[in-house]
Amino acid sequence: MDQLLESLTEILGPENVLTGEAVLERSADWFSSMPCEAAAIVRPATTEQLSQIMTLCHKARQPVVTHGGVTGVVHGAVASANELVISLERMTAIEEVDAVGGTMTVQAGIPLQSVQEAAAEIDMQFPLDLGARGSCTIGGNIATNAGGVQVIRYGMMRQQVLGLEAVLADGRVVSSMNRMLKNNAGYDLKQLFIGSEGTLGIVTRAVLRLQPRLPSEQCAMVAVPTFDALTTLLDLTSRRLDLSAFEALWNSHYRLMTEESGAHRAPLPVDSPFYAIIETQGVDREHDAERFQALLEQAFEEGLISDAVLASSEAQRQELWAIRENIEVLIRALGPMFSFDVSLPIPAMASYVADLERQLAQAFPEAGRLVTFGHLGDGNLHIMVTVGDAGRESRYAVEKLVYQPLAEIGGSISAEHGIGMEKRDYLYLSRNEDEIEVMKMLKKALDPKGLLNPGKVLP
Amino acid sequence: MDQLLESLTEILGPENVLTGEAVLERSADWFSSMPCEAAAIVRPATTEQLSQIMTLCHKARQPVVTHGGVTGVVHGAVASANELVISLERMTAIEEVDAVGGTMTVQAGIPLQSVQEAAAEIDMQFPLDLGARGSCTIGGNIATNAGGVQVIRYGMMRQQVLGLEAVLADGRVVSSMNRMLKNNAGYDLKQLFIGSEGTLGIVTRAVLRLQPRLPSEQCAMVAVPTFDALTTLLDLTSRRLDLSAFEALWNSHYRLMTEESGAHRAPLPVDSPFYAIIETQGVDREHDAERFQALLEQAFEEGLISDAVLASSEAQRQELWAIRENIEVLIRALGPMFSFDVSLPIPAMASYVADLERQLAQAFPEAGRLVTFGHLGDGNLHIMVTVGDAGRESRYAVEKLVYQPLAEIGGSISAEHGIGMEKRDYLYLSRNEDEIEVMKMLKKALDPKGLLNPGKVLP
Ligand SMILES: Cc1cc2nc3c(=O)[nH]c(=O)nc-3n(C[C@H](O)[C@H](O)[C@H](O)COP(=O)(O)OP(=O)(O)OC[C@H]3O[C@@H](n4cnc5c(N)ncnc54)[C@H](O)[C@@H]3O)c2cc1C
Ligand SMILES: Cc1cc2nc3c(=O)[nH]c(=O)nc-3n(C[C@H](O)[C@H](O)[C@H](O)COP(=O)(O)OP(=O)(O)OC[C@H]3O[C@@H](n4cnc5c(N)ncnc54)[C@H](O)[C@@H]3O)c2cc1C
Repeated sequence: MDQLLESLTEILGPENVLTGEAVLERSADWFSSMPCEAAAIVRPATTEQLSQIMTLCHKARQPVVTHGGVTGVVHGAVASANELVISLERMTAIEEVDAVGGTMTVQAGIPLQSVQEAAAEIDMQFPLDLGARGSCTIGGNIATNAGGVQVIRYGMMRQQVLGLEAVLADGRVVSSMNRMLKNNAGYDLKQLFIGSEGTLGIVTRAVLRLQPRLPSEQCAMVAVPTFDALTTLLDLTSRRLDLSAFEALWNSHYRLMTEESGAHRAPLPVDSPFYAIIETQGVDREHDAERFQALLEQAFEEGLISDAVLASSEAQRQELWAIRENIEVLIRALGPMFSFDVSLPIPAMASYVADLERQLAQAFPEAGRLVTFGHLGDGNLHIMVTVGDAGRESRYAVEKLVYQPLAEIGGSISAEHGIGMEKRDYLYLSRNEDEIEVMKMLKKALDPKGLLNPGKVLP
Repeated sequence: MDQLLESLTEILGPENVLTGEAVLERSADWFSSMPCEAAAIVRPATTEQLSQIMTLCHKARQPVVTHGGVTGVVHGAVASANELVISLERMTAIEEVDAVGGTMTVQAGIPLQSVQEAAAEIDMQFPLDLGARGSCTIGGNIATNAGGVQVIRYGMMRQQVLGLEAVLADGRVVSSMNRMLKNNAGYDLKQLFIGSEGTLGIVTRAVLRLQPRLPSEQCAMVAVPTFDALTTLLDLTSRRLDLSAFEALWNSHYRLMTEESGAHRAPLPVDSPFYAIIETQGVDREHDAERFQALLEQAFEEGLISDAVLASSEAQRQELWAIRENIEVLIRALGPMFSFDVSLPIPAMASYVADLERQLAQAFPEAGRLVTFGHLGDGNLHIMVTVGDAGRESRYAVEKLVYQPLAEIGGSISAEHGIGMEKRDYLYLSRNEDEIEVMKMLKKALDPKGLLNPGKVLP
């Protein structure tokens, strides 16, 4: 290892090979902020440097773990004391913005929000959006195939990437920086690296697809009396509005974020079983607002909503979204907390959550508590559970309650957060043996020595 | 081979193992309708049968070529006399339509149009759409990652597939029939089989994503005076309308389809340099038509269009689209014809086509002729060239003219049709060495004996 670190120091300079305290003062996990373990953290500035690093690591059989913004929530960036962390924090350049072609070429360490802002500057948008936007990186978004609040309209990260470049385990650089919207010339290699959580290659650059910024945006939060009403409302709004987000909050979530914690003013009474944030992006400045309001009125008359508040300014819109996005309040109120991110058929959701609530109360009558919210339009729920302690046994018990029913319903144990180390042992619930075998085949073909993010994703 | 055919006959029955005349009377290529060569054509009805077939072929090292609707245009389904053709023509079942979840589960041999119709029956739509809709199959659409006329709004086939099942070269069945909109549990294996033209596995079933059918549709054909006006019009309409198609026709195409061939009545004068078909799908029945017309008027006033005809009925809409889609007229008029499907940055298009026209006239002063049209919004042009003969030398000369400039511009030699055998030798123009090497690595990992569609895609 010392030998390797010396060689790496030669390539990167001593200020970019961190060891000792400089490693420990960093965090390796967003929820728990447990300290970072690693033999060292290295910080390349270019693809070439990273390629050199991996060539050396490959020779020395040195396993590595890649760090983007370290906002991942499935222990995907956790390293052990004999692993090397590769942080892309210095690879944050915007290399090109092509307003005509609607593309942006960036280094993978750039924060998502910087990309969003650069797109806005040319009257375009980069539509991937999630609460961690200020810290998470494009490389991390690619590695986890991040979702977020606008998937219903624009799809996940996979759909926003036209091309990318990755360094393979042996240091080889695969540059597949396609800029065309359509390119069926051979296999679409970028798909390998999207959503594989850094286990098949390290993403160094990407060509992102931008979208036109639409002139009219509407946003409202509504109170919804029943789950049936919620799904009917989703269907209605997706057929009659230019929906860009449809986020559902169970009462457990809304009440905690407002009345109980006092963190946010309650814009609607706290006694409704469900709430939703509905947002549209449209082309018709003149009529969109009118149509939005008319539809809400219709929904009110049909009993689909019992109350609504419209955002009349960007500030008010931010306030509504903060109720949905402020995870810190949850951590404070529920810590120690287990966090889940499941997908399941929408019709199965209500009873799934109700059953879970009941079983949790049975198993943990004292401290058992559950908070539910999520990207309803995508069939994706976030479920936060506390049982008072974070011990191994409690965790297993809760995981069993949350995951077991999904296999039967045909849901997924990870809608958007990925598998990392945290969900690895449950992968078999969402994927069959043959699928897992083909995954291993791919891993073996691309990283035969198993050096990239060892122990993540695959059992 | 005889031994193998005997075993296959046992599995499938003699009526499903075609040989001799029954093979030759079929076609293996849409444009040339050259007769099908093959040791035999086998027609499984189920995944299990196909798995048995491949298990036997794998043992016998027997190469196979998969046939869907055989509408592909890059010689991807062409077989040789010692290869076995596997036709999915009996695997056409719709297994399930889930109106609530918005999914349809089908066998891969089902024609695209049957899927579109079944979706319409539940007031949904399957948005992939292309001229060959009546014959091409879902399996072929997946294998080629088909594009078509609504990519600008809904993306290519890749975006319409939630899950799929494939039989590998050794007969193993990988069933990855995900129905969730979001599923980040492990590698997204379906991506391997989408767009790899049957070289990594044979797709047997798929879970397709349906979209709501929107209440309001508008369609117009417009005459456009310059290429600059055409691109400005594309930008304007994509920001101000709910664009679902933007197809451009060069004068060379429009004039041939109408006045010259007499095949279609000319809805607009034939002397405009460019034409476009503009289509929208919107949620606002009340105002969409008004807004569409107002925008066309604005475009007229700004000099972006010189003339326009609005489709006032479905029949009229079909008439406009027929001008764009009737390939048979081109084949009759231009045969023997070379057909190209390239993508390139939109700003580079006008001079690319003009240069090509000039060089063609120089190289083939007698019979050289070129017709251009395509999915402008996707940066995708179809270019049909005739030089009077279809000889090898002529083909090479034309291919050189068409492909060579693309490498420099950063375009692709295949936007949506794939590589097949026809473009294999030019793959290097759109993909670098490292990319091609990783492709080969994948091929080797999944089909080490090279039995699936040998000679296709990879050089
Ligand atoms: C408040 C909050 C809200 C969130 N909301 C959402 C949400 O709505 N939707 C959603 O999908 N996620 C959400 N997340 C999770 C997280 O933000 C995403 O997973 C994000 O994409 C991770 O990006 P990152 O740069 O922080 O990656 P990291 O946490 O650094 O890494 C995540 C994984 O990707 C790998 N990786 C990172 N960079 C690279 C690279 N360049 N090449 C290869 N592998 C790499 C790591 O090794 C690790 O396995 C949220 C997180 C927080 C804290
Ligand atoms: C008039 C016309 C218009 C067209 N317009 C368009 C267009 O707008 N956009 C576009 O993208 N294409 C277009 N095409 C091309 C063609 O229709 C598409 O490529 C279509 O997806 C092919 O489907 P198929 O079932 O006919 O496949 P085939 O021609 O049978 O096969 C195509 C390739 O896929 C493989 N394959 C087929 N089925 C399977 C399977 N189940 N599993 C694995 N491999 C398989 C074959 O081996 C072959 O390599 C057009 C063609 C015509 C004739």
